[in-house]
Amino acid sequence: MDFKSQVNEYQNRVKTALDHWLPKTCMHPQKLHEAMRYSAISNGKFIRPLLVYATGDALSLAREQLDGIACSVETIHAYSLIHDDLPAMDDDDLRRGKPTSHIQYGEAMAILAGDALQALAFYIIAHDTKLDVDSDTRLKMINTLSLSCGSRGMAGGQAIDLLSIGKSLDIAQLEDMHIHKTGALIRASVIMSACASTNIPESTLEHLDHYSKCVGLAFQIRDDILDVEGDTEVIGKQQGADFALNKPTYPALLGLDGAKQRAQELHEEAMDSLSSLNHQADMLRQISEYIVKRIR
Amino acid sequence: MDFKSQVNEYQNRVKTALDHWLPKTCMHPQKLHEAMRYSAISNGKFIRPLLVYATGDALSLAREQLDGIACSVETIHAYSLIHDDLPAMDDDDLRRGKPTSHIQYGEAMAILAGDALQALAFYIIAHDTKLDVDSDTRLKMINTLSLSCGSRGMAGGQAIDLLSIGKSLDIAQLEDMHIHKTGALIRASVIMSACASTNIPESTLEHLDHYSKCVGLAFQIRDDILDVEGDTEVIGKQQGADFALNKPTYPALLGLDGAKQRAQELHEEAMDSLSSLNHQADMLRQISEYIVKRIR
Repeated sequence: MDFKSQVNEYQNRVKTALDHWLPKTCMHPQKLHEAMRYSAISNGKFIRPLLVYATGDALSLAREQLDGIACSVETIHAYSLIHDDLPAMDDDDLRRGKPTSHIQYGEAMAILAGDALQALAFYIIAHDTKLDVDSDTRLKMINTLSLSCGSRGMAGGQAIDLLSIGKSLDIAQLEDMHIHKTGALIRASVIMSACASTNIPESTLEHLDHYSKCVGLAFQIRDDILDVEGDTEVIGKQQGADFALNKPTYPALLGLDGAKQRAQELHEEAMDSLSSLNHQADMLRQISEYIVKRIR
Repeated sequence: MDFKSQVNEYQNRVKTALDHWLPKTCMHPQKLHEAMRYSAISNGKFIRPLLVYATGDALSLAREQLDGIACSVETIHAYSLIHDDLPAMDDDDLRRGKPTSHIQYGEAMAILAGDALQALAFYIIAHDTKLDVDSDTRLKMINTLSLSCGSRGMAGGQAIDLLSIGKSLDIAQLEDMHIHKTGALIRASVIMSACASTNIPESTLEHLDHYSKCVGLAFQIRDDILDVEGDTEVIGKQQGADFALNKPTYPALLGLDGAKQRAQELHEEAMDSLSSLNHQADMLRQISEYIVKRIR
C-alpha cells in the first residue's frame, strides 16, 4: 500500500473510532456534544493518530489495540485547538477551513467543549475494553497522557507561548516552548502506543522516544514555515497569523532557508533513530518525511 | 473533636497535600504554576475534600489513602471555578473574597491554569504512591472521575446551565442541571473515597451514593438561597449574581421558604441513607447538616 492510501486508512480508522467514543449528538446536552464532535471529527491531518498506528505497525500490534489510544491523543489535541483559538488566546476565526469552535458555538460552549474533550481522553484509556493490556500498563498510559498535556507539557507550552509574545527568544527558548507545546503530546502518542507492546526492549523504546522528539520539533518548524509561505486556502488557517501576532518563529530566528535546513536535519535524525527497526517501521519513516514536506 | 476542629484538620490536611502535588512556583513556567496555586489553595470551603475524608473515616480508612483523592477532586473543582468565572461564562470578578483568576492573571492564563489543573487531577490518581490500592481500583477511580467531570457530568451541567439562561425551567429540569453541574463531582468525591476500601459491601456503597446525591443537591439549593439572602462579604462572591443573570434557581421556582424546606428534606434523606453506619459516619452526618445551614 502506498503512503497516501495507508494514511487514508489510518484516518478513516480513527474517525470511525472517534464516532464510537464521542457522545452522540442526540444525547443530552446535545449542543455540547455537537460542539465536541465538530472539532474532534474534522478535516484535520490526524498526525497524532497516524503516529499511534504507525508505531503500532512497527511493533506488530493489532489495530484494535490502538484505536482508543489514537482517539485519546486526538481528543486532547482537539481540545487544545479549541482553547488556543479563543479570542483571549490566538483569536482565530478559521481552523481546518471551517469557522473555529467559538465562532460556530460561542465562546462559553467552546470552552466547555474543550474541557469535556480533555476528560473524555482519560475516560477512553481507563475504559477501552478493546485495549488488551494489564491495568499497570493502562495506568502508565494515563500517566504519560496526563504529564504530556499538563503544566509541564502542552498547557505549559501554551503558557510559555503566551508569555513570549513580543519578546525576543533565542533558539533554545523557542525549542523549549515547542517541546512543551506540540512536542509533548506527539511524544506521548508514540510512547503510549509503544506501551501497548508487552515485550518491547528498553532500547527500542528509547529509539522511538528520540524519533518522536525529532518529528515533534520538525512538525512545529514546518508549521512556522507554512505561516510564512503557505496558502491560507490550503493550510486551512490564516497565513501570516504568527507574524501578525509578532510571535517568535523559526524562520524569524534562522531565516526561511535556515529553518528548512533545521527541519531536514531533524528528519534525518529521526530516520537514524529508527535504524534498528525493520521495514515495518516504514510508515514512521514516511510520516517523518511527510512532516517536513507537507504543504498544509 | 468538635465539628469545626475536625473540619479545620481536614482542610489543613488537604492544603498540605495540594502544596505537595501542585508544581512549585519556582518551576517553569512559573506564572502558570502561580495561577494554578492561586485558585487551588485558597480560602475555599473544600467541601469535596471534606467528603473524601469523612467517607474514609466512616469506612476506617487511613488518612494517607485519602490525600491524593481529596486533591484530585479539589483540583477539578478549582479548574471548573476558574472557567466558570471567565467573561464568556459568568463573568465574575470576585471568588472566595479574592479577584478571580482572569482578573488576577488575564483570561488566557486563567484558561490554561484551568486546563492544567484538570490534567493534574488525573495525574495524581494515576501516580499517588501513598494510595495503597490495586491498579484495577485506581482505574475505577479514574473512570469515576472522568465521567463526573466530562460532558455527561460537570462540563455537561455547565452547558445545560448556559443553555438555560433566560429560559423558564421546571423543577425537574433545574434538578437535572444541578445533578450534572455540582452533583456529579460531589458524588465522585464520596465514591472514589469508598473505592479505596477493599471490602466495602455493595449495599454500603449504594447508601453512600444516595447520601452523596442528596447532599450534592442540598448544597446547590443552599447556594441559590445564599445568592438571595447571603452577604457578599461573607459568601466571598457577588450576592444576587444569579438573579442579575436571570438564572433559574430554587428560590425562584419554589420561593425562599420552599427552597429551604426542600434542602431540609434532602438533609433528612441523607441522614436516613447513613442509618446502617455507626458513629464513625458522624462527620458525614454533620457535613450534611452544615451544607444546609452554612452562611458561605
